Amino acid sequence: MNATHDIENFYQGLVSHQLIIPTNVNGCYGRGAVFEDVLQRFDALVTRTAGADGAEEMTFPPILPRTLIETLGYMENFPQLAGSVHSFNGDERQAHELSERLRQGERWEDLLEPTDVMLTPAACYPVYPLFSGLLPAGGRLVTLHSWVYRHEPSIEPTRLQSFRIREYVRVGAPNVVVEWRDMWLQRGLALLQELGLPAKSDVASDPFFGRIGKMMAADQTDQRLKFEILTPVISTEKHTAVCSFNWHQDHFSSKFGIRQRNHELAHTACLGFGLERVTLALIKTHGFEPHKWPDVVRKNLWK
Amino acid sequence: MNATHDIENFYQGLVSHQLIIPTNVNGCYGRGAVFEDVLQRFDALVTRTAGADGAEEMTFPPILPRTLIETLGYMENFPQLAGSVHSFNGDERQAHELSERLRQGERWEDLLEPTDVMLTPAACYPVYPLFSGLLPAGGRLVTLHSWVYRHEPSIEPTRLQSFRIREYVRVGAPNVVVEWRDMWLQRGLALLQELGLPAKSDVASDPFFGRIGKMMAADQTDQRLKFEILTPVISTEKHTAVCSFNWHQDHFSSKFGIRQRNHELAHTACLGFGLERVTLALIKTHGFEPHKWPDVVRKNLWK
Repeated sequence: MNATHDIENFYQGLVSHQLIIPTNVNGCYGRGAVFEDVLQRFDALVTRTAGADGAEEMTFPPILPRTLIETLGYMENFPQLAGSVHSFNGDERQAHELSERLRQGERWEDLLEPTDVMLTPAACYPVYPLFSGLLPAGGRLVTLHSWVYRHEPSIEPTRLQSFRIREYVRVGAPNVVVEWRDMWLQRGLALLQELGLPAKSDVASDPFFGRIGKMMAADQTDQRLKFEILTPVISTEKHTAVCSFNWHQDHFSSKFGIRQRNHELAHTACLGFGLERVTLALIKTHGFEPHKWPDVVRKNLWK
Repeated sequence: MNATHDIENFYQGLVSHQLIIPTNVNGCYGRGAVFEDVLQRFDALVTRTAGADGAEEMTFPPILPRTLIETLGYMENFPQLAGSVHSFNGDERQAHELSERLRQGERWEDLLEPTDVMLTPAACYPVYPLFSGLLPAGGRLVTLHSWVYRHEPSIEPTRLQSFRIREYVRVGAPNVVVEWRDMWLQRGLALLQELGLPAKSDVASDPFFGRIGKMMAADQTDQRLKFEILTPVISTEKHTAVCSFNWHQDHFSSKFGIRQRNHELAHTACLGFGLERVTLALIKTHGFEPHKWPDVVRKNLWK
């Protein structure tokens, strides 16, 4: 009950300060000007921090090819989170029926058909097919901005159905990829701590579906393939992941034939900052009015 | 055939200069760093141009509530363009069936159910419910950034399934709204012409569905409710809309009870720059290498 109270209080504060703009769907709110400014400033800070790494920049839309979701096995692992895009391909008669159903308040979605696209569930997915073949010496490093979708409606303001990820993806020799992941784990912690967030890292797992999924998650934890950086947002007890690190080993490389110069399969790893979550963590920690935040935090962001 | 040749040439040039990144779905490509830089610079130019107007800034995700699409009558008018988001709500047994179907290469989407959201088809839609009730004196002015979805796969690089709109929405007294629209029609033309684009404005209509839709489009043209700014992108003969102006009269105000201080229904109008289309128009006009563009254009954008 206390947790629900904390959530409600934080949500109401965000709304009353015009940081977020409610709609009638949980996890689907708008962002006000001040919220958006903080988010963009944090993203720019990440860019400055990693600038010398020389990552290739790419931007993908919030949709991706349906065949990519199928190839990646997303529907086997996370069907409950997926977003499949359906549209109307019918004729005048079917359009008339659709209109009639709407007029009668009846469901109409069975008149639609799947399109060639789905919503992007992870910012890095569109990149892996581009790595197919022999990598350049040293591998590749890419950075991405993307809106991602997760079908998990919730009253908790940190659990959004649609949100932005600032992502980095590294592909290359296994040791290079792991060292890069370890470097970023320290860098990400330092970056968030310098903004006054009591951030900590921990081993984590993905929300795989069902009973088999539970075993996959346990295996992922055992192998230390996923880490998260967490910080208190809703309450001091409950920490929320604001940055996530995944070492995929050759999971993607084997699907797309991504090879090192010695023709062995490459490894991949990615990390993503949840831009809305970082923004919410900053607001929770420093207050609803960013112009009153501590000087050191403001200097880091509005530099 | 010549038109197809022009399209193919332009597309190949965009790809070979790493301005766009192909996927296996038409109208669903990624954007390279240089493309994205031009797009962001143009967006910033719009912000500078309109800065003194003092618009409220809002950002919405690429999804919106399904009930909003229903309330706005979008499925009656543009069902062929809509994107409905469906997900999996089933149990272990159904998840197993889904996996089996995927393994067999069979369709699996009928195992999904509609969610509470759809893809945003127009950047301004989420705003109108917020105007419900009595407006402040003088009305309101809002600016938005949004990814929008249109189900119209095409090989033409200007016709995207997912793209960004920089939008302004004005609500208030009818004469105020029309004057604002007229002011922006001139301002938008000047802004694009100063970037070296041979832009012109014209009366236009929306792609309403079917036979009744054709009549609605004719009516919209007769009443001069929609204007577009067009410029050559694919070829000098075929001009492409890069900015669109809609005067809705009391269409949205009547649905959401948006009233002036005198309690009469307000009018609304909106305008949107298609950010990818403007970027493509600049590339087509000035070449595939923005660092070689004319000084006057570069100064306007990289100021």
